[in-house]
Amino acid sequence: MAKLVLIRHGESTANQQHIFTGWNDVPLTEQGKQEAREAGERLRQLNLSFTAAHTSYLKRAVQSENIVLDSIDQLWIPQYKTWRLNERHYGALRGRKKPVVREEVGETQFMQWRRSFTAVPPLLDEVILKRRYARIGVHEPRAESLKMAYDRLLPYWQDQLAPRLLQHENQLIVAHGSSLRALIKYLEHLSDVAIDGVEVPNAQPIVYTLDDHLQIADKQILR
Amino acid sequence: MAKLVLIRHGESTANQQHIFTGWNDVPLTEQGKQEAREAGERLRQLNLSFTAAHTSYLKRAVQSENIVLDSIDQLWIPQYKTWRLNERHYGALRGRKKPVVREEVGETQFMQWRRSFTAVPPLLDEVILKRRYARIGVHEPRAESLKMAYDRLLPYWQDQLAPRLLQHENQLIVAHGSSLRALIKYLEHLSDVAIDGVEVPNAQPIVYTLDDHLQIADKQILR
Repeated sequence: MAKLVLIRHGESTANQQHIFTGWNDVPLTEQGKQEAREAGERLRQLNLSFTAAHTSYLKRAVQSENIVLDSIDQLWIPQYKTWRLNERHYGALRGRKKPVVREEVGETQFMQWRRSFTAVPPLLDEVILKRRYARIGVHEPRAESLKMAYDRLLPYWQDQLAPRLLQHENQLIVAHGSSLRALIKYLEHLSDVAIDGVEVPNAQPIVYTLDDHLQIADKQILR
Repeated sequence: MAKLVLIRHGESTANQQHIFTGWNDVPLTEQGKQEAREAGERLRQLNLSFTAAHTSYLKRAVQSENIVLDSIDQLWIPQYKTWRLNERHYGALRGRKKPVVREEVGETQFMQWRRSFTAVPPLLDEVILKRRYARIGVHEPRAESLKMAYDRLLPYWQDQLAPRLLQHENQLIVAHGSSLRALIKYLEHLSDVAIDGVEVPNAQPIVYTLDDHLQIADKQILR
């Protein structure tokens, strides 16, 4: 048995302003930092020892994970940052206000972009070359469906997370709403339709107990 | 040419109380966090891009590095934590008040333990097995001279730091008074006697410019 803990970052400035974000790199609000601390305090009660912590290349996740690691007094464990845990890329929607987009395109299209597994948001006009991705040979996508995020996340599960969990090493992941939805779809064997209804609130630790086939023996949400 | 930046952590609770610390794991004070932020702000002016950040297994250094990375907006770069950058181990002195020890043993012995290259503090009675070190096969030392810290730090320089700097990749290290003194002794070719006089204040970035033989072309302290 091993524990896998998933935490979505605390409130970001974009959450606060109801803005599509994706790979835009926005910080936590003061409230977001407080939420991360509270998530860490709740996790601390479980008294789990992790052998590694994983997060994305985006500061709202890294900041949240640093706060959680401090709260559980495990700042010393290895922390791995990977673009594969980045939020789903929102393409041309990024930086735009959600209520404005909803008004423009109507509720059906809006919810499809937000919740469906395969819908791809409008593409960015050009490929963005940012140092943090260019240096590892990764192009920023022009937009991603949840499925596209799922497909690029899965190698990280297979290569980095599953092997450690199979060694009974507890793992902590602090990431994003959509990258965690993708992982939850995989772990819980949810259909393309069933994942539609799944939301991951900010800063509520989801604690999976996984058996030796990495199947879920228990799931607990620390609210 | 590559830049190597060394920063000692901000004020810790033990600094504040004038306590020998070493491998004891004490947090930053509020003032220490503020000092780390100011060090980060000064470093930000230089507009350096780092490819990696390195720190110890001790939270006063990890916390400081996290604050600095946030200040320079490079939270996404890989961060490596190693016991080889830990503070020198103060043996049986750890946890003891410096003025009390000075009173007991006299100024000469006191300063020798603090500043000499080879003096070993009184040994701990027993070997401590802490999870964070035991899991990587490392025993906590019973005490270390500065030379002993130097000797265990050098492999990290050779294996992890020098190869990156030789590739012209800027590196950031946030560590401790004595582990940084050891590194400075190596970089500046200081004699065992000359290192005696070197102090590294909290949270003042030391910026080395290193040539292609990793010799110092320039040194700047951001006060």
